[in-house]
Amino acid sequence: MSESCIFCRIIRGELPSTMLYQDQQAVAFKDIAPIAPVHILIVPRQHLESAAETTAENALLIGHLIRVAAHVAREQGIAESGYRLVTNIGKDGGQEVFHLHWHLLGGRQMRGLG
Amino acid sequence: MSESCIFCRIIRGELPSTMLYQDQQAVAFKDIAPIAPVHILIVPRQHLESAAETTAENALLIGHLIRVAAHVAREQGIAESGYRLVTNIGKDGGQEVFHLHWHLLGGRQMRGLG
Repeated sequence: MSESCIFCRIIRGELPSTMLYQDQQAVAFKDIAPIAPVHILIVPRQHLESAAETTAENALLIGHLIRVAAHVAREQGIAESGYRLVTNIGKDGGQEVFHLHWHLLGGRQMRGLG
Repeated sequence: MSESCIFCRIIRGELPSTMLYQDQQAVAFKDIAPIAPVHILIVPRQHLESAAETTAENALLIGHLIRVAAHVAREQGIAESGYRLVTNIGKDGGQEVFHLHWHLLGGRQMRGLG
């Protein structure tokens, strides 16, 4: 846990969010600046800076996050229409919050990859 | 393995590719239509249709693919500058090949998420 990280603070309930899913390892909440009809962040409770920190020890956690994304996509009714999962690492990636998160994007046709 | 899947055919060596990484579970090769200076596909040898097929059984494999992406990013010299990982599921996601793959994108500033 990080004292100042805004995602850690959301997970601790110190900052408001529209929480859509929670389990012992992960949470999912709405992005506050959505770029698509469905734009949800899938976030591990553990404070990892980015997907670049994936190790042999936490590989199962990363896989779990992708399962959670698929689960949330089904709940949001976009499993059939399709969706995109994106994670940004560092400056060129466009990472804005340095706590690993997957963007789950859907509800319209996605455009270019970036 | 799928007889006609183009990624299965690349993995079997039946179609040409610029292969950058191989292990027992995964391969990485250059995208034939790059949209960034670094545009590499990280692909499991196992034929899974998309990330929506992530299960408790293959969650470790999914995490491994993200580790491979980070490894290839280091080899390509973009670990510090940053990069983006994207996977598309179904029509709205923009999925074109129905064999799970992660786009590793870097070498320039990434733009919108789609």
